[in-house]
Amino acid sequence: MCGKIHVLYQLSKAGKLCVPAMNVNDSVTKQKFDNLYCCRESILDGLKRTTDIMFGGKQVVVCGYGEVGKGCCTALKALGAIVCITEIDPICALQACMDGFRVVKLSEVIRQMDVVITCTGNKNVVTREQLDRMKNGCIVCNMGHSNTEIDVASLRSPELTWERVRSQVDHIIWPDGKRVVLLAEGRLLNLSCSTVPTFVLSITATTQALALIELFNAPEGRYKQDVYLLPKKMDEYVASLHLPNFDAHLTELTDEQAKYMGLNKNGPFKPNYYR
Amino acid sequence: MCGKIHVLYQLSKAGKLCVPAMNVNDSVTKQKFDNLYCCRESILDGLKRTTDIMFGGKQVVVCGYGEVGKGCCTALKALGAIVCITEIDPICALQACMDGFRVVKLSEVIRQMDVVITCTGNKNVVTREQLDRMKNGCIVCNMGHSNTEIDVASLRSPELTWERVRSQVDHIIWPDGKRVVLLAEGRLLNLSCSTVPTFVLSITATTQALALIELFNAPEGRYKQDVYLLPKKMDEYVASLHLPNFDAHLTELTDEQAKYMGLNKNGPFKPNYYR
Amino acid sequence: MCGKIHVLYQLSKAGKLCVPAMNVNDSVTKQKFDNLYCCRESILDGLKRTTDIMFGGKQVVVCGYGEVGKGCCTALKALGAIVCITEIDPICALQACMDGFRVVKLSEVIRQMDVVITCTGNKNVVTREQLDRMKNGCIVCNMGHSNTEIDVASLRSPELTWERVRSQVDHIIWPDGKRVVLLAEGRLLNLSCSTVPTFVLSITATTQALALIELFNAPEGRYKQDVYLLPKKMDEYVASLHLPNFDAHLTELTDEQAKYMGLNKNGPFKPNYYR
Amino acid sequence: MCGKIHVLYQLSKAGKLCVPAMNVNDSVTKQKFDNLYCCRESILDGLKRTTDIMFGGKQVVVCGYGEVGKGCCTALKALGAIVCITEIDPICALQACMDGFRVVKLSEVIRQMDVVITCTGNKNVVTREQLDRMKNGCIVCNMGHSNTEIDVASLRSPELTWERVRSQVDHIIWPDGKRVVLLAEGRLLNLSCSTVPTFVLSITATTQALALIELFNAPEGRYKQDVYLLPKKMDEYVASLHLPNFDAHLTELTDEQAKYMGLNKNGPFKPNYYR
Repeated sequence: MCGKIHVLYQLSKAGKLCVPAMNVNDSVTKQKFDNLYCCRESILDGLKRTTDIMFGGKQVVVCGYGEVGKGCCTALKALGAIVCITEIDPICALQACMDGFRVVKLSEVIRQMDVVITCTGNKNVVTREQLDRMKNGCIVCNMGHSNTEIDVASLRSPELTWERVRSQVDHIIWPDGKRVVLLAEGRLLNLSCSTVPTFVLSITATTQALALIELFNAPEGRYKQDVYLLPKKMDEYVASLHLPNFDAHLTELTDEQAKYMGLNKNGPFKPNYYR
Repeated sequence: MCGKIHVLYQLSKAGKLCVPAMNVNDSVTKQKFDNLYCCRESILDGLKRTTDIMFGGKQVVVCGYGEVGKGCCTALKALGAIVCITEIDPICALQACMDGFRVVKLSEVIRQMDVVITCTGNKNVVTREQLDRMKNGCIVCNMGHSNTEIDVASLRSPELTWERVRSQVDHIIWPDGKRVVLLAEGRLLNLSCSTVPTFVLSITATTQALALIELFNAPEGRYKQDVYLLPKKMDEYVASLHLPNFDAHLTELTDEQAKYMGLNKNGPFKPNYYR
Repeated sequence: MCGKIHVLYQLSKAGKLCVPAMNVNDSVTKQKFDNLYCCRESILDGLKRTTDIMFGGKQVVVCGYGEVGKGCCTALKALGAIVCITEIDPICALQACMDGFRVVKLSEVIRQMDVVITCTGNKNVVTREQLDRMKNGCIVCNMGHSNTEIDVASLRSPELTWERVRSQVDHIIWPDGKRVVLLAEGRLLNLSCSTVPTFVLSITATTQALALIELFNAPEGRYKQDVYLLPKKMDEYVASLHLPNFDAHLTELTDEQAKYMGLNKNGPFKPNYYR
Repeated sequence: MCGKIHVLYQLSKAGKLCVPAMNVNDSVTKQKFDNLYCCRESILDGLKRTTDIMFGGKQVVVCGYGEVGKGCCTALKALGAIVCITEIDPICALQACMDGFRVVKLSEVIRQMDVVITCTGNKNVVTREQLDRMKNGCIVCNMGHSNTEIDVASLRSPELTWERVRSQVDHIIWPDGKRVVLLAEGRLLNLSCSTVPTFVLSITATTQALALIELFNAPEGRYKQDVYLLPKKMDEYVASLHLPNFDAHLTELTDEQAKYMGLNKNGPFKPNYYR
């Protein structure tokens, strides 16, 4: 499960993992398809279905520039939104810079934003104090992780009025009349308010199924009570199964080339740490 | 060294590596900056300085969709070229599909191409047979790996005439008058014909220097005669040193958030396998 | 009304126009907002709501590269579709080339396409013969003009079965089992299956209201029984009314600059023919 | 000539134009190719050849969002620069918003900018006061119009030191050591420091030649001492002559379609005011 993978590693570290586990979440096909490519589309779909917002010219802050954040930012920028990001990790922050996004602290920009999107996998990324400072009509939603990223609990307080304007859309009304538009009560927008293409489901489900088959079939001793990354070869197999959809034509290595690269002609083609 | 990293792993496998080695090439900062972000700019710069080509509307095939290929494709597509790619790896091929590039075999498209760019790290990716089939005026260049990707040796044959039209630019002339424009005699375009921004050099040099310092200072026994990835923490340190250039403001984890994520507030923020 | 403006000019030419008419459709704000910017968003919205298609890697042909076509192409390309276009006008065709789209005849590519979109303002752009040659699952829709662009009538024939799979979505089933997905029975996708942001409606409605006010208030003789373009100044006024939404700060000409340019400091800033 | 067209109109208004003139500058092929598409490439080329700047993450302000400004902004944004614009015209300003650029006054942002680019066709767009406030290392250049846009004269004053660091590149040094990098002494960057592809020259030269031929061959009385736009049909002819370069296949109207649209099958396909 997406945002929960660190729990598995914590269990493993603490010696409390009682079976082998496969970290499917960090396989390339999962990371890129379920996260990057799928979110690139579902952020648009989720916002349109709930709010009918026009993206052009909107000021958007995306919290977190991992794969999900990268997908959201790419799509929104392409449709004319002005996007800035927040990050805790200097590597992701530098990537954001190189991709043309200003890296800011949320509190520096919160007053100007039209849309606030969380994709950090963390908790309380948007606090009540920041919700208080948002402008009228600001849309807040979560693309990241369960329902912890926005401090929704803090909004269930007597001085604020909740008005459900349609399914999955609440207006939170401040005493001065300011409205903040909260989507899916802070749960995952991509799951609650957008469709997930069957193509992406197929990739994720295939990866999960192969991981289970591998764990089931593996000879005694191959896997201990630890967390493992999906073998590269399987990741490549999942990809190859989905290529015919695109009429994509793979090139085959010649014997000479395979030898030069030190690769088997049937893969795996990349080292295990490759992303 | 960029394309040579598999040689280190081969030596290690064969038990012939006699010192510890740090695989700096696969650190995130190196992969993304020296390869992806730098090549995104130097492919344009290299082609402009040598050929004055207009990118808009040009048919381009990029061989290899790793970080270098991704950089080249992004830039050329953004400037209006019509780009297709070749790949041996189904994962990279699927990424190319999702990014909007047709995945083809080189021989299927070679007759229509205006520009052929290699970024595979392999040898003989463009063969004499394919050079024979290119159209008049086709530009051929290498962004990948030493000078092996284009079979330049096959062009040094009596039936073909070489005409040096300016520094780094040769016209290879077929008996029927067809000209192929070969850049830098098949050596790296980005090093031979384009500038490398000092910012990128700074990132790469910092990474290399830190790796050497780590190997030198490491206590006896931390590293054996093997190939190691740069510790994540150092990779993040390199990035953080370069952020002030962009007036980027990092967010700090609260204690509560760090605990929830199981992270140290000062990093590393990602598992070691993260890219 | 969008696709109907040539009818007004035909009436005028024939001397049959009995009142002055304002060609609001060709005002800059209408062309760019209602057509380019709005369609850039509604093509995505319309396709997602009806079909849940994943855009990445899809082969799409867009018939017509006017403002609507440009909007559709920009959005689909940005989300990873592989887009080609058809055109009758060499200027628009050359623009498509420079923007990185292959210019093809529909019959050359129809077999490979995943999506066919019409935006020509013309009739029978997609013929029965072409519908017969589409592959299984191909989606066909119209962004252009009334319901004439796709020859839907030709599909109401006994050998084909229509199956309504949900509101606005019909599967047309060939005797061999092939299904073509027809959206909104060939009517406008953007009006039938997508939302139109209130911001765009505001721009269009403001432009129309100002045109009517101008026609109503104009002194005797300013307008004859002909078709007029909206005065530039009004077009600029509509735009200026909508700028505060974006916290946009206009620069004012200095006296010296206005004199140098031969402009009034309050506009109009462009000649009337400017688009 | 590009920036000088308003002079012709001023002469005409004043009754001082003594021959017919053709406004070639505002033909579609000229506007789009010489301005939009060519500047999209030459802004990158000009900056790279003179300064080796890395575009990723750079803060850039572009003064003027006409065709030239649009070209510059598209290219720089695509390569990861963070771009904002200044405008006097509300229509162009609204377009900038919809394309994802913040619209600012120059003095609001001048302190943070890494690059300042003028494309207004006006004079003194960048003043001495603004030059005084730029940060160390800021690059200033002109893509617009003769050498008037940047107030270069104001920099030729005793308290500032000029240092020529290479051809077309001057460092202007303030008493406190701050350096501003001035390119081409404020003359046109695209003409001074970048190549112009022969393809673009061919389009512009063809358009100019056809205009002259038309004026020369026109029957007595067709043109008076006024400024005329190039007939649409000729504009289309120029485009059609250049399509074969891209292997572009135009679609032909059927008789039925031509009749429906009220068009001649050979064009012109758009009304004269179309851009």
